[in-house]
Amino acid sequence: MAYGLARRELRPRVPLRPGEGEKHHLTSLEGLAALSLDALSSVAYGPEAIVLALVVAGTGALTATLPITLAITFLLAALVVSYGQVIAVHPDGGGAYAVAKKDLGRTTSLLAAASLVVDYVLTVAVSLAAGADAFASAFPGLADDKLAVCLIGLALLTAVNLRGVTDSARVLMLPTVLFIVAILGIVVLGLIRSHPVALVGTPRSFPAHESLGFLLILKAFSSGCSALTGVEAIANAVPTFRTPRVRRAQRTELMLGALLGLMLIGLAVLIRRDHVAPRGDVTVLAQLAAGAYGTGWAYYATNLIVTLVLLLAANTSFGGLPVLMSLLARDHRLPHLFGLRAERPVYRYGVVALALLAAVLLIAVDADTHRLIPLFAIGVFIGFTLSQIGLVRHWATQRPERWLHRALINGTGALLTTLAGVILLTTKFLEGAWVVVIAVPLMMLLFARVERYYTAVGEELGLGRIPDPPDRWTGSLVIVPLGEVSKLARHAVSAALALGDEVVAVAVHADPDKTRALQEAWDRWNPGVRLDVIDSPHRSLVQPIVDYVQRVAQDGRQIAVLIPEVEPRHRRYEILQNQRGLLLATVLRARTDVVVCMLPYRLSV
Amino acid sequence: MAYGLARRELRPRVPLRPGEGEKHHLTSLEGLAALSLDALSSVAYGPEAIVLALVVAGTGALTATLPITLAITFLLAALVVSYGQVIAVHPDGGGAYAVAKKDLGRTTSLLAAASLVVDYVLTVAVSLAAGADAFASAFPGLADDKLAVCLIGLALLTAVNLRGVTDSARVLMLPTVLFIVAILGIVVLGLIRSHPVALVGTPRSFPAHESLGFLLILKAFSSGCSALTGVEAIANAVPTFRTPRVRRAQRTELMLGALLGLMLIGLAVLIRRDHVAPRGDVTVLAQLAAGAYGTGWAYYATNLIVTLVLLLAANTSFGGLPVLMSLLARDHRLPHLFGLRAERPVYRYGVVALALLAAVLLIAVDADTHRLIPLFAIGVFIGFTLSQIGLVRHWATQRPERWLHRALINGTGALLTTLAGVILLTTKFLEGAWVVVIAVPLMMLLFARVERYYTAVGEELGLGRIPDPPDRWTGSLVIVPLGEVSKLARHAVSAALALGDEVVAVAVHADPDKTRALQEAWDRWNPGVRLDVIDSPHRSLVQPIVDYVQRVAQDGRQIAVLIPEVEPRHRRYEILQNQRGLLLATVLRARTDVVVCMLPYRLSV
Repeated sequence: MAYGLARRELRPRVPLRPGEGEKHHLTSLEGLAALSLDALSSVAYGPEAIVLALVVAGTGALTATLPITLAITFLLAALVVSYGQVIAVHPDGGGAYAVAKKDLGRTTSLLAAASLVVDYVLTVAVSLAAGADAFASAFPGLADDKLAVCLIGLALLTAVNLRGVTDSARVLMLPTVLFIVAILGIVVLGLIRSHPVALVGTPRSFPAHESLGFLLILKAFSSGCSALTGVEAIANAVPTFRTPRVRRAQRTELMLGALLGLMLIGLAVLIRRDHVAPRGDVTVLAQLAAGAYGTGWAYYATNLIVTLVLLLAANTSFGGLPVLMSLLARDHRLPHLFGLRAERPVYRYGVVALALLAAVLLIAVDADTHRLIPLFAIGVFIGFTLSQIGLVRHWATQRPERWLHRALINGTGALLTTLAGVILLTTKFLEGAWVVVIAVPLMMLLFARVERYYTAVGEELGLGRIPDPPDRWTGSLVIVPLGEVSKLARHAVSAALALGDEVVAVAVHADPDKTRALQEAWDRWNPGVRLDVIDSPHRSLVQPIVDYVQRVAQDGRQIAVLIPEVEPRHRRYEILQNQRGLLLATVLRARTDVVVCMLPYRLSV
Repeated sequence: MAYGLARRELRPRVPLRPGEGEKHHLTSLEGLAALSLDALSSVAYGPEAIVLALVVAGTGALTATLPITLAITFLLAALVVSYGQVIAVHPDGGGAYAVAKKDLGRTTSLLAAASLVVDYVLTVAVSLAAGADAFASAFPGLADDKLAVCLIGLALLTAVNLRGVTDSARVLMLPTVLFIVAILGIVVLGLIRSHPVALVGTPRSFPAHESLGFLLILKAFSSGCSALTGVEAIANAVPTFRTPRVRRAQRTELMLGALLGLMLIGLAVLIRRDHVAPRGDVTVLAQLAAGAYGTGWAYYATNLIVTLVLLLAANTSFGGLPVLMSLLARDHRLPHLFGLRAERPVYRYGVVALALLAAVLLIAVDADTHRLIPLFAIGVFIGFTLSQIGLVRHWATQRPERWLHRALINGTGALLTTLAGVILLTTKFLEGAWVVVIAVPLMMLLFARVERYYTAVGEELGLGRIPDPPDRWTGSLVIVPLGEVSKLARHAVSAALALGDEVVAVAVHADPDKTRALQEAWDRWNPGVRLDVIDSPHRSLVQPIVDYVQRVAQDGRQIAVLIPEVEPRHRRYEILQNQRGLLLATVLRARTDVVVCMLPYRLSV
């Protein structure tokens, strides 16, 4: 699922913002093509999830697919109407975290944030797993290597995102349009077809383990709700639309709802009519594609388009997580570091963390899409519910025209998504939902602890209070650790003389002969600065200097240690230089309170 | 094999040096117990290597084991006499690298160094693999998990060495004595035994693939020579002996030779008499142990002692590699960093690198001892040969009394080891020896290139020449990047005022409201220092400051950027602080020539 383009548009390289030029913004149709990818790609696994849930009661139970799909479509309609109101109230977008923070208070916003993080990770995992299923439907030889396919896909996404993608909404349009055409083609051609179904994959037998009771129907319903993930993406991306933004976004949301509903119902009708049951190696969607298009090139093309769209859906998380993390960092709920959204090294942490978590999940479930779906849907439903409740609260506080009517719509949405969430949680608890039940509170705790720490630090630093005036005229001593008399020594002593009231050079030597030679060279150079030589029989460089610094750092002056660094021209030589200086700097910073200064000396080799 | 205690004694924590007290030094017998572990442990895989090489010509060919062992023992005798002379000429020890550097010039010493590195890695791998064989002989259930046993053992050694072991020669004495007793017990009890052999392991059939020709005998001979690895350890460790050092060390070398020869011949006689052939799951040594001791507790104890001694043999490399690396670093052939032998972080690099290389080897051969032996023996024979040739050169130059006689002894040793090395290389080229043929020149090239780089840098830095006098009175400007007005700002501005002639504070803000608030707070504080605010709409912190610094760094003054760092009391909070400062420091150091200063501010939280 996804907050897709909303986040993508906010990414470092593409700071598309409202007002930066209308022509960069989207029309309703463009918005549909660019923002519906996550929601629509859910049809690759949603209907299959229903079928797989029902089939434990035998293939006869599969007739329940259609009514369950109709119930899900009803929920979809409620969500679409409800998100239409979210768009009107939050035209700046921002997603569940921003909404919850504004309307629902601290704890709820932490819940929203935690569920969003879970969501991002699961979007990657589920989309890749479903993508591997689609890929293996086209190439059955890969059926046993789905995990490998997933991990290769993940490595690809990670590499692309580490390099930084110049993403644009428009890149996503073509695959989305192809996907819509392919799926609607399946529905239309499937319905007008009279010849028998083209069978792909190996048949499996399904003995009825249990009867088609109420609980099973609830399970199938909650699994199928995974098809709804992603419908909130448009509401998060209102600023990317062309004016009138709200109207266009609402229209797009409506089109998305209609399209998704049409696809789901159409596929369910085909499943019922053709008695489609799960088969080995191919997905339900691939079976329907084979029924509509035969098993020629169109079948392969459809499966490849589905794979591509799922890969792109996974990719949206890589754009989304850094944005969420920077929002959390600005609220002091994650390390401030992550607030620096434009800094590439920081951005990479998020990419790598996301990739690792998704890889762990994929390996844990052996790339089985349907073991991920319970975990996936819960995070999404938390987000749905919080957005709706926030809106109810908003109406109740602001009381605009017809507020009761509006609150009723959002209240119904909240009730339905809560219900679906609770059903999901109870029916799927042992099948994986427990992971979410543990992970979400742990993350909330983490955010809260980080916030508490920053508050304590702010207290101690006296943030918001005017400090005493700075100390003046304390005087300063600059210590320069040196190994030999050279141009490097000259460079370092010159810089030290500019900075310090007094300068002293210090050398560590294990060998008395070398010590004598150094002292003689120093005397011949005569730079007007004292040289202290420390004896170190055990060939330790760092500890003797630390001891020396601690000895002189007693007299109230500002002490600085100036470490000259030889900087090779080529990065590959870096291991050959600097390392001793860096080691010394690290230890000095950990063990003393002196200023540690690094002075580069650039080589031509 | 090993340079064992020689290196261990030189390790960081135990700077045992000649003259530090005679009671710490070893008598001949103590030296034998402490220094022979590597050489003696070779009997766990040497004889087996012969048997495995011969058996491709059918079990009948195994009668050749005894004559081949006698040939190897002859080579051993030559090596022992030869190393007796090495001890006399190099009483300071130092190993093949030091000897080659002194007597044989640059390229040869690089060859010695590279072969030693190969050796250290292979000592770890072979000893662990053979240890796993011995362990699995006691516990046959582990026969399929030898690789896992090896990797667990490797992890154990790595952990112990990362923590730092307080090693002492005396710790090794008890296991060595137990090992000698156990092996001699096998020989003696085996020979006087009249009851039938206790059979362990599953029998295997050996159809004769080839006839027992000359080539096969050469192969078996060269494989068996792996039993000689480690006999140079005593010559490397002369300084650890009690005076008269040379005499004691020579006596120890002689005892080691006698003991090792006795064991090898004894085991070969038993192999011949009892028609011992390779069996599933148990080693040849374990079969002989079962024959001598039966299959009761003594059998288990023997296998466990063998395992332990092999583990300790592997451990010697972890002590040896850092010493070799520091020698190379002092000769400018490895990064100077590694010359800092006493610095723990540096020492850890060597440990981890060694463990990784050994792990790769073990995984590559699936912990099969006998696929490692060709690689192993070649490095060892290079070392043997270079030591002998160096000595021949020494005699020819110095021409002491009876120099021709002495040169003849070492020349014979060199000839025999060269011969064995060439046989090994040609007969085992495709079986793994090619790895060494590639790795050794590559490493020599690496050392040479590092040396060339350091020479060029020395030229550029004017090492050995007296530089111009340092610049004086250039004046200085200290730039302090700040986020808020706080005690941290006060601390940083105070330090900057002590160091700079002029100080300016600089803040980066994305939000105009915050900028205004900061400017107001600054004016109220009024620290007597100018505040420049840089606008950064894209939430980048680093680039705007770098641009600012580059702008002001034009006027010839010494520029320093002083970055205050909040240091949390607990390490676990470090991710919450400093990171922005570190990022800024890293980029400034890479892209500008200014002095980058870090000022710690320690928190109580």
